[in-house]
Amino acid sequence: MSIDTAAGLAAQARQQQLTKPPGSLGRLETLAVWLADRLGQPVPPRLKPAIAVFAADHGVAAEGVSAFPPEVTGQMVANFVAGGAAISVLAAEHGAALTVVDVGVAHPIPDVPQRRAQLISRPVRAGTRNLLYEPALRPEECDAAWQIGAAVATRLAEDGHTLLIGGEMGIANTTAAAALVCAYTGAVPEEIVGRGTGVDEGAYGRKIAVVNAALARVRAGGDPGPRGWLAEVGGLEIAALAGFYSAAAAAGVPVLLDGFISTAAALAAMRSAPQVGRWLLAGHVSAETGHRRALAALGLVPLLDLELRLGEASGAAVALPLLQAALALHRGMATFAEAGVAAGAVP
Amino acid sequence: MSIDTAAGLAAQARQQQLTKPPGSLGRLETLAVWLADRLGQPVPPRLKPAIAVFAADHGVAAEGVSAFPPEVTGQMVANFVAGGAAISVLAAEHGAALTVVDVGVAHPIPDVPQRRAQLISRPVRAGTRNLLYEPALRPEECDAAWQIGAAVATRLAEDGHTLLIGGEMGIANTTAAAALVCAYTGAVPEEIVGRGTGVDEGAYGRKIAVVNAALARVRAGGDPGPRGWLAEVGGLEIAALAGFYSAAAAAGVPVLLDGFISTAAALAAMRSAPQVGRWLLAGHVSAETGHRRALAALGLVPLLDLELRLGEASGAAVALPLLQAALALHRGMATFAEAGVAAGAVP
Repeated sequence: MSIDTAAGLAAQARQQQLTKPPGSLGRLETLAVWLADRLGQPVPPRLKPAIAVFAADHGVAAEGVSAFPPEVTGQMVANFVAGGAAISVLAAEHGAALTVVDVGVAHPIPDVPQRRAQLISRPVRAGTRNLLYEPALRPEECDAAWQIGAAVATRLAEDGHTLLIGGEMGIANTTAAAALVCAYTGAVPEEIVGRGTGVDEGAYGRKIAVVNAALARVRAGGDPGPRGWLAEVGGLEIAALAGFYSAAAAAGVPVLLDGFISTAAALAAMRSAPQVGRWLLAGHVSAETGHRRALAALGLVPLLDLELRLGEASGAAVALPLLQAALALHRGMATFAEAGVAAGAVP
Repeated sequence: MSIDTAAGLAAQARQQQLTKPPGSLGRLETLAVWLADRLGQPVPPRLKPAIAVFAADHGVAAEGVSAFPPEVTGQMVANFVAGGAAISVLAAEHGAALTVVDVGVAHPIPDVPQRRAQLISRPVRAGTRNLLYEPALRPEECDAAWQIGAAVATRLAEDGHTLLIGGEMGIANTTAAAALVCAYTGAVPEEIVGRGTGVDEGAYGRKIAVVNAALARVRAGGDPGPRGWLAEVGGLEIAALAGFYSAAAAAGVPVLLDGFISTAAALAAMRSAPQVGRWLLAGHVSAETGHRRALAALGLVPLLDLELRLGEASGAAVALPLLQAALALHRGMATFAEAGVAAGAVP
């Protein structure tokens, strides 16, 4: 976690003066300094977080790689905006704005009152093609999804949000994310493919076979590059997330990553433009097999390890109070001089 | 984490119906069920947390085992109540009542406005005797401190608090806690003694030697039993915390443990009355060497690992939003039936 700005260095100096043994607040100290550095303020105010969840379907769901039918993507989008999903509850609990973006839901989204979130409809197409047999997206479709995600981040930054969280919903998208992580890290599917929402042995074996076959299909034509891989084996919501992270970084707004799929999208963004990495924090490490490897490829150490594996941005949302607490301590604690406390033999 | 009550079983059944793959919220699911079980309510409301920080001095500070002078104990008590300490900030940030209890501060407590916490003055004596040479406390002094802590927990439970957090302040108290953890677990000091607030090599070596010598001194007279150990090598704030945890359990109020010293006190409470263990959760594992071993002896898996080593209840306070989030999800999420979402092939 490099600290480069005057604000970051001033925050680092302040941490040494607060009434605690230096370093005793551990990662909460480095978090406060990191946020001060990225936000360009020695003592930042409370974060104004915004969450955007991108939803789309996957042609590869036809291979029986998920425990849930594809209809669930659209049903869950309705649940997000109506307020009944985990991310709806967590966004409300932690004071984060919530936006849901349809970038390619294949089945109808039930019409429900938008009580908890705004729904933005920008479907690029009705889900991806089946990545087992052909490119999931044409390059221009992948670019279109990327641009939609980027536009959402840019608007949230312009609206004054100072922390952005991306999330996703898409039945079968752990298969696409696993293929991407293999492509970006060189890992083999057996190291990366996990149980997703909870598939049985049979579906798990199919998932590994599908990812192996898809990687072989693409590699037969040579390395398509980071954006090429995203189109070949990715997804509309994954491309949108990659654009979202890239635009957040370009706008100078820190990002708190969620789980396996979000991290695969962040890898796509960082392989395309390495400077994106400077703006990323990892909210948690999920129970999904390949997440730890994907985080390591980004050089990130997760804040939480609570065996979550839901997606939707839920793990990042659960970690949000840690960032607010780090900044509250940084702002609110007295210095040794202010409190009349002996600073002791600072090691 | 045994689930025994009708409320707990009902909560477990509810978790299977919420709009997420079963188990996908990981430890947030087991936390919600555990809290429902202990609180006796299938769908508990928001927790009403209270934090009590017990402060006292230690005769063993004379051996040069801390990076800070003993005057700091009283100065930090003033800082707690005035609002400048980490725990003052965290209590305010997370909506927890804060009580500070002087059970044996040796040096004057500066007179400051009690802006953030109530200060209760119940000094049993001006710090412990030096545990290197003699029993830190007489049995009746240890009992008095225990009773003070118990009375605080009983009052907080009567006031309607549904989660209790204990914390401590006492220069040199990691030495006392290390001796207790060795006594209760059979570990040797080299496995348990840590750097506390950040001592150098010389003080670290002295700490290990002091704990070894104190254990040998007591063992020469035979095993004094759990309460005997607490008097021999413990501290007034540690005995008060043990009483606090015991009374919380007796009142049926769940406890969220803080760091190494709090966990040593919980071990004292559980060795005295095993049923206390049923009411304990571990907020975090600290950077202090012996904390992981002490938690394992209680059979507890910590929620956070953020390299904190401050005490004051700070680690438990940082973990508090995870419990509130777990309950918010349990209360607020829609069921599959309510949301019209296909439940999928539940594994």
